[in-house]
Amino acid sequence: VDLAALEASARERLSEATYSYIAGGADDELTLADNVAAWSRYRLRPHVLRDVSTVDLTTSLLGTPMSSPIQVAPTAYHRLVHPDGEAATAKAAAAAGSVFTLSTVSTVSIEDVAKAVPEGRHWFQLYVHSDRDLTIWLVQRAEAAGFSALVLTVDTPVIGRRRRDGATGFSLPPGIEPANLIGFREGRTESTNLVDFAATAFDPSLTVDAIGWLREHTRLPIVVKGVLRGDDAAACVAAGASAVQVSNHGGRQLDGVLATADALAEVAAAVGDRAEVYVDGGIRRGSDVLRALALGARSVFVGRPVLWGLANNGADGARAVLTDLAAETARAFQLAGVRSCAEAGSDLVS
Amino acid sequence: VDLAALEASARERLSEATYSYIAGGADDELTLADNVAAWSRYRLRPHVLRDVSTVDLTTSLLGTPMSSPIQVAPTAYHRLVHPDGEAATAKAAAAAGSVFTLSTVSTVSIEDVAKAVPEGRHWFQLYVHSDRDLTIWLVQRAEAAGFSALVLTVDTPVIGRRRRDGATGFSLPPGIEPANLIGFREGRTESTNLVDFAATAFDPSLTVDAIGWLREHTRLPIVVKGVLRGDDAAACVAAGASAVQVSNHGGRQLDGVLATADALAEVAAAVGDRAEVYVDGGIRRGSDVLRALALGARSVFVGRPVLWGLANNGADGARAVLTDLAAETARAFQLAGVRSCAEAGSDLVS
Amino acid sequence: VDLAALEASARERLSEATYSYIAGGADDELTLADNVAAWSRYRLRPHVLRDVSTVDLTTSLLGTPMSSPIQVAPTAYHRLVHPDGEAATAKAAAAAGSVFTLSTVSTVSIEDVAKAVPEGRHWFQLYVHSDRDLTIWLVQRAEAAGFSALVLTVDTPVIGRRRRDGATGFSLPPGIEPANLIGFREGRTESTNLVDFAATAFDPSLTVDAIGWLREHTRLPIVVKGVLRGDDAAACVAAGASAVQVSNHGGRQLDGVLATADALAEVAAAVGDRAEVYVDGGIRRGSDVLRALALGARSVFVGRPVLWGLANNGADGARAVLTDLAAETARAFQLAGVRSCAEAGSDLVS
Amino acid sequence: VDLAALEASARERLSEATYSYIAGGADDELTLADNVAAWSRYRLRPHVLRDVSTVDLTTSLLGTPMSSPIQVAPTAYHRLVHPDGEAATAKAAAAAGSVFTLSTVSTVSIEDVAKAVPEGRHWFQLYVHSDRDLTIWLVQRAEAAGFSALVLTVDTPVIGRRRRDGATGFSLPPGIEPANLIGFREGRTESTNLVDFAATAFDPSLTVDAIGWLREHTRLPIVVKGVLRGDDAAACVAAGASAVQVSNHGGRQLDGVLATADALAEVAAAVGDRAEVYVDGGIRRGSDVLRALALGARSVFVGRPVLWGLANNGADGARAVLTDLAAETARAFQLAGVRSCAEAGSDLVS
Repeated sequence: VDLAALEASARERLSEATYSYIAGGADDELTLADNVAAWSRYRLRPHVLRDVSTVDLTTSLLGTPMSSPIQVAPTAYHRLVHPDGEAATAKAAAAAGSVFTLSTVSTVSIEDVAKAVPEGRHWFQLYVHSDRDLTIWLVQRAEAAGFSALVLTVDTPVIGRRRRDGATGFSLPPGIEPANLIGFREGRTESTNLVDFAATAFDPSLTVDAIGWLREHTRLPIVVKGVLRGDDAAACVAAGASAVQVSNHGGRQLDGVLATADALAEVAAAVGDRAEVYVDGGIRRGSDVLRALALGARSVFVGRPVLWGLANNGADGARAVLTDLAAETARAFQLAGVRSCAEAGSDLVS
Repeated sequence: VDLAALEASARERLSEATYSYIAGGADDELTLADNVAAWSRYRLRPHVLRDVSTVDLTTSLLGTPMSSPIQVAPTAYHRLVHPDGEAATAKAAAAAGSVFTLSTVSTVSIEDVAKAVPEGRHWFQLYVHSDRDLTIWLVQRAEAAGFSALVLTVDTPVIGRRRRDGATGFSLPPGIEPANLIGFREGRTESTNLVDFAATAFDPSLTVDAIGWLREHTRLPIVVKGVLRGDDAAACVAAGASAVQVSNHGGRQLDGVLATADALAEVAAAVGDRAEVYVDGGIRRGSDVLRALALGARSVFVGRPVLWGLANNGADGARAVLTDLAAETARAFQLAGVRSCAEAGSDLVS
Repeated sequence: VDLAALEASARERLSEATYSYIAGGADDELTLADNVAAWSRYRLRPHVLRDVSTVDLTTSLLGTPMSSPIQVAPTAYHRLVHPDGEAATAKAAAAAGSVFTLSTVSTVSIEDVAKAVPEGRHWFQLYVHSDRDLTIWLVQRAEAAGFSALVLTVDTPVIGRRRRDGATGFSLPPGIEPANLIGFREGRTESTNLVDFAATAFDPSLTVDAIGWLREHTRLPIVVKGVLRGDDAAACVAAGASAVQVSNHGGRQLDGVLATADALAEVAAAVGDRAEVYVDGGIRRGSDVLRALALGARSVFVGRPVLWGLANNGADGARAVLTDLAAETARAFQLAGVRSCAEAGSDLVS
Repeated sequence: VDLAALEASARERLSEATYSYIAGGADDELTLADNVAAWSRYRLRPHVLRDVSTVDLTTSLLGTPMSSPIQVAPTAYHRLVHPDGEAATAKAAAAAGSVFTLSTVSTVSIEDVAKAVPEGRHWFQLYVHSDRDLTIWLVQRAEAAGFSALVLTVDTPVIGRRRRDGATGFSLPPGIEPANLIGFREGRTESTNLVDFAATAFDPSLTVDAIGWLREHTRLPIVVKGVLRGDDAAACVAAGASAVQVSNHGGRQLDGVLATADALAEVAAAVGDRAEVYVDGGIRRGSDVLRALALGARSVFVGRPVLWGLANNGADGARAVLTDLAAETARAFQLAGVRSCAEAGSDLVS
């Protein structure tokens, strides 16, 4: 899979508004571009003459064994790119042995994803909404549906300005709506416009206490997503987070922030072994996965490329992105003399 | 407001000579470009999980509360871009709750600005001229008209070479003239050409003693504008400046000098809390305002973008630039976990 | 010789598949480009007023005097670019007084090269294959044919992904085959596709012990090629390597690794005088040779440019590349005030 | 004077071969480009509020007062660009109050320059040739003609490879010849091809002893030109040089060497006040002159721009380049708060 070709092909299949909604970032898209470019700035320092006849990509996330350190990041509205929507993506992730993170604003509901892919390992991405009952309602449904972790997004007290959406007039077409929000207190959640939803439903007053509050309402481990600093990461862990995901929301929130590659080492050092550290943003190659592990991540999460695969060929297309990236990662491991995720140490990058 | 689109639109409305006069810089325009680029080099390190439900952009300048840290920098000849000239810009600033700094070479006089916008907070930009009586005459008029501070420009002992003006043959068209200079000693100030005016009227012999001299002739606080070094800033404060404005005259004086973003931290450190520190140059986004505050500025001043707004839509256009930039700044604050100007610390940039 | 023009001319003579096979690198070709660019980042600090009336380019490799520090790196399939194949290249190297390194996957056999160019100093590049008997068989033939060193490639536990080859559908045309592999255990080595060969024959389980094993099976000195780290280099020397060649396989294995120029000083420092250190990758000018020596290499090895010369004009073309590069190196020595390879110290680069 | 426009205009008046001979550099022209770019990398840190009503550009070179720190560097064959040749350039320098450095390979002889411009301050650039008598003959003629210093070029033990000259087939047209070489030992110096001349006449065996040897044969002070390192500079001074000129021969000798801007501070620190330090290479603006002084040069020398002026308008054109550059320098001084060459300290650049 050539990801650039895959994206070009997906672009042809999608409307300009949908393509731009997925591909774009905030404001001048400096961080969007830097997320990708930053990984390459870390030059690899490969070992030779290690026995790499078997390379073990397996890892564990939150105590559960996974087949590779590559998982699916939460992204919105999969039915925009393929009629099967998140059911297909979840199937792809399960086939690849990866975690699938379902977005709160998915176009297939929690329950339908669980039903369609009972074999999958699903995590649920959520916000702590101003209306806490909405959050609790979603949490309980995710628990009931067998989801195994909650991914709390914390970089969205307000929504970033995405100029492409203004230019294209992006909005959800008829028949595509945030499936998880239907049915909660009539009249509250009927808006299908993410910006409106965010403006009414996100809670900008959130503090680190929200983690403790959420812990009281769930038995699931909590991943805090959207952290770019060591001090914030340490505070999240102290408040009960089981993992911290270094993320800048794919460059879609505050433009000009650090690339996630550049934030990762500081966060990993601050967290130590008290929690797990993940990263998303700009991962496009197996060598990027290796770099992320060397810089301190336990796992990477991939967003846009999975959608390009989904757009091109549904579940099979999305699965191919994941398995090809895993194959690339295995080859990068071999060529760098690394036999397991644990061996991907910081001396591998300069 | 998309500032690039706004500038393009303004360019269509203006003559090439006028557009170039405003947009251009000195010599090879290295500093002109670097002023803008430098802000982006400071990557933001945002906090998450702060209660940003209310973000307070208010600050105080020279003891007076202001609604935001965004003010209007002095620029010349506003009637070149809109018939209402500085009266419109002053109205825009007042509507946005910003300081309006009137240039000595404005095309609406001190008194007419005061009359047109009595509700505004106006500062007066001035030079200490070779003919000190001219300076005193202007100071007295500004005081009488209710202006509340003097902004002494110190980076203009001689005028920079602006090649675009030579190429376009820029000169003031009939009917547009420096309104403040009319009537001072017949025959002395009738030139409407800024370069001629500068050559005859600027005082290249000025030293830091000019600050003390000016203090003796005014009850208004003095802002020294055009400082790029800590030692100079400290000397200005020691001589009685109430504030120092880090500026390189929009890249229009000595080409190749430091971008103001790169000079700011040194100046802020040298001044400490003995005076206020402002900055202008290249501020184009709310995230730039946040960076400036993080690097030690109490407030930023915006020049060219306000003129592009004025050119497009008079007072309303200029106001929209200011209020949109303030809204962007508020969003940048929220997305960086910053609740007030005071919270914008140096750890937010790297 | 203008190498850019030479490559352009060679490109016209070759099929796109063959040209791309030679010119290309792995994945995004970041390291391919950086190998060339990195040398220029080391600015030269030339001496003046040294007596450079005679400049001595001679050096010794593994105890044998050589006429210059420029040798021929192993590359595959020379008959793809010229009917005389490796016999012509070996002749060119001998004429230039350079070592010729014959690839295991040459299209002229060990014995035929020795027969065609008895006067040459030939080294044999090899892998330690999964089937150790194949390696021993090749070693014995190289010894018998009078080759004087073995170059053990260690950066190829698996083959890198070269996207150009996928795009062009590169494969060996009829009549061109790895000559050295014919005749070893019928049915084992008949594949003429390098990737297939690699997949079946390379040994990814190789460790540094392979060096000791190889020493037991040969009286020839061993050069370990493909090292980018000081710790690996030291381990190779401790295991019995007589020399270490800093190489990233011309950017064809793990993309994103350090340019060889950037890895050289660390390797040279780690090895000290316990073994010789060579480098290949991106050497295109006499000044690059000087830089390599200043950074700690005893000799450089050149790959692609020799093939461009071979494509253009057979043995004469390849020889001209070597002698012109030596002449350029001599001039660079003179202009830097360097009279011998020993004088090319680390203070010459910054 | 806009130097880019001046060069473009000169290019139209000259043959491609002549233009390229002057404009070009060695090999890949990396140093040629970096010489210009490097100055801009030193950002200026201007002072304000200094009394710059009078700015004093005067300096002294080798004890003689000069009107500015801008002098004319030696360049070859001025009659290629204007029929009056070096006589015109010398006149321009004299009119501007600058030193004129006459090249050994000038197209107007030592004596004719002296006769044409008796009021000028002329220096003579020379080599120590293999045939020392040739050097002595030239030195004696320069002394007799009233030249006041010798500029010994030491970066030319052999000639650099200038690819443009090969491409254009540059050679001296009939009637244009190195005037100073005519008449020395019939049959020795009749070649008018600089490369041939260099190959037969330059002395690559030169060491620092040549400075002592030259001192014994002249009463004139010696400027050693072509030094890029502190240790070499110190050795030249110890051997009797009165000044050291930091130069890389306009990027025409060893490509890839340091830009002169980047070599200057080290040389100045090594020389201290034991000799004077000059610099040439890439000076294109008054702000570059200021940077050079801040980095430790006593004076700058300008080459190509003077030839573009000469090509456009003879002596007047060349003079305009010098006086305009001096005017720019005066303005840069004023805008940086610098009142004299002595005040241009190292704190002005970062």
